[in-house]
Amino acid sequence: MSDRNELALIDWIRLKAKHAVGLQVGIGDDAAVWQVGGKSLLLTTDMLMENVDFLLSEAPASLIGRKAMAVNLSDIAAMAGKPLVALVAVALPKGCGFEFARELHEGMQAIAEEFDVTIIGGDTNAWDQPLVVTVTLLGEASERGAVTRSGAKPGDWLFVTGPLGGSIRGKHMSFKPRIREAIELQKSVNLHAMIDVSDGLSADLHHILDESGVGATLVTDSIPITEAAKQMGDSRSPLEHALSDGEDFELLFSCSPDDGRKLLSGVCTVPVHLVGEINAEKAARLQWPDGTITSLARFGWEHSF
Amino acid sequence: MSDRNELALIDWIRLKAKHAVGLQVGIGDDAAVWQVGGKSLLLTTDMLMENVDFLLSEAPASLIGRKAMAVNLSDIAAMAGKPLVALVAVALPKGCGFEFARELHEGMQAIAEEFDVTIIGGDTNAWDQPLVVTVTLLGEASERGAVTRSGAKPGDWLFVTGPLGGSIRGKHMSFKPRIREAIELQKSVNLHAMIDVSDGLSADLHHILDESGVGATLVTDSIPITEAAKQMGDSRSPLEHALSDGEDFELLFSCSPDDGRKLLSGVCTVPVHLVGEINAEKAARLQWPDGTITSLARFGWEHSF
Repeated sequence: MSDRNELALIDWIRLKAKHAVGLQVGIGDDAAVWQVGGKSLLLTTDMLMENVDFLLSEAPASLIGRKAMAVNLSDIAAMAGKPLVALVAVALPKGCGFEFARELHEGMQAIAEEFDVTIIGGDTNAWDQPLVVTVTLLGEASERGAVTRSGAKPGDWLFVTGPLGGSIRGKHMSFKPRIREAIELQKSVNLHAMIDVSDGLSADLHHILDESGVGATLVTDSIPITEAAKQMGDSRSPLEHALSDGEDFELLFSCSPDDGRKLLSGVCTVPVHLVGEINAEKAARLQWPDGTITSLARFGWEHSF
Repeated sequence: MSDRNELALIDWIRLKAKHAVGLQVGIGDDAAVWQVGGKSLLLTTDMLMENVDFLLSEAPASLIGRKAMAVNLSDIAAMAGKPLVALVAVALPKGCGFEFARELHEGMQAIAEEFDVTIIGGDTNAWDQPLVVTVTLLGEASERGAVTRSGAKPGDWLFVTGPLGGSIRGKHMSFKPRIREAIELQKSVNLHAMIDVSDGLSADLHHILDESGVGATLVTDSIPITEAAKQMGDSRSPLEHALSDGEDFELLFSCSPDDGRKLLSGVCTVPVHLVGEINAEKAARLQWPDGTITSLARFGWEHSF
């Protein structure tokens, strides 16, 4: 199935989804927002697959477990929420042994504890196929509410919390979910829209634009680029890597210019990089140093099947 | 890993699990019970794997989707809860096509709707390996509270909600989660302990005995046996199939003899079968028609890796 077909499938699932009692945000954001007993719960699930999301030959079991939990933590961060409890389902390759399974769970436990998350349930399976780990994470929105993908407004400034690109060289396994950064940002300013950069800056920006019904211009020489992206040494430029590589798990968000100025003047300790602005016209664009404007394609990483 | 090692792993995970705020029941029951905003939420997750839990050659995509949701519904039934919302993560085999993916989701949607469950989130992936589906289901406990595995008392009568054995001949894909039955039973009597028969009557009885710190005697000729079990025609007797086959997804529960008599006299419309009783002595036994008592091993189906 092509990327286009995958988006069509998600659209179809979304269309079929009925409105649950208390459901404030359903399929199509980093986490669902479900009002229960006066609380706004955030719910997200992510499945990691061997040879797609990690290589057994490159990552120890503990780091695989860590990533399985961390990608979910990043989804809660993208809503500026606080993570609370998790459920874990694993399909272990037969013969992987007790120590491997224990280290996988230790990796999950360690980062869960770092963010005060308790693993409250699970399902342990074995099969003669590669490792699969699914984590489902529940959190709660802050008192200011969940930050969705749909609140970007024309004129908003666009920020990222760190340099992008080349995560395949290591950061995709060891990144730090921006839970504390998101909470601090939301305390300091009024965040209009937010997403974690998992599919790539361009693809994730497109998600915000689609949900908010707006466009945006990124300024090429203000996009922070990792050393890893600069050292890739392949046919793509560091900027292309920063725009299209996935799994940096930095936050991409928009806020008013006034709030943007506050952030740049150091109103909170979270490092932020101004990368562009939101436009009323529904198009994604790049602005180059010489003033040229080009179109920005949705070429971030997407699954194909 | 052996069955023994798998149980050791689950014990280890359970030991490591910290106590979350509001967590009433953690790892080791059919679902976790988590108190949030005055509600008792039930949370469970189950992963289904191709060639382990279903065969693509035998089951259409819609039936696979149905089963992935139904096994989770059965876990909520085992707590006498009401299911509410679900999250779905899938790893689709590359090349399976859009129609297959759509039918898989339609199967989940259909049974979800049947039980008023809304799918509120998901994660769609593709890889060049067999199909994996993980469903996480949230429900809420009734006003009388969740029925756990740990409340069985010496003298309790043991019941099942239907005949057992031979589910591999079809019932393991098409079984009906006993959601409504559990709710009606709990309204009618005081259920002490309950579990769904997923690993097999013997194994699941052992789970109740372990958690309740009691023993039990099953009366062999009162165990209801399916026609499928009688027609297996292999080296194992129909009774052995009824005791050790998994995935019948009937409920196994205990209550006081007084409440048991009420159920047998038809206080509610749920069909129940009296199969034995709970003993103070921590042993599992079978009582044969001639009065002989033998030991009942934990030989239900368990994963090995």
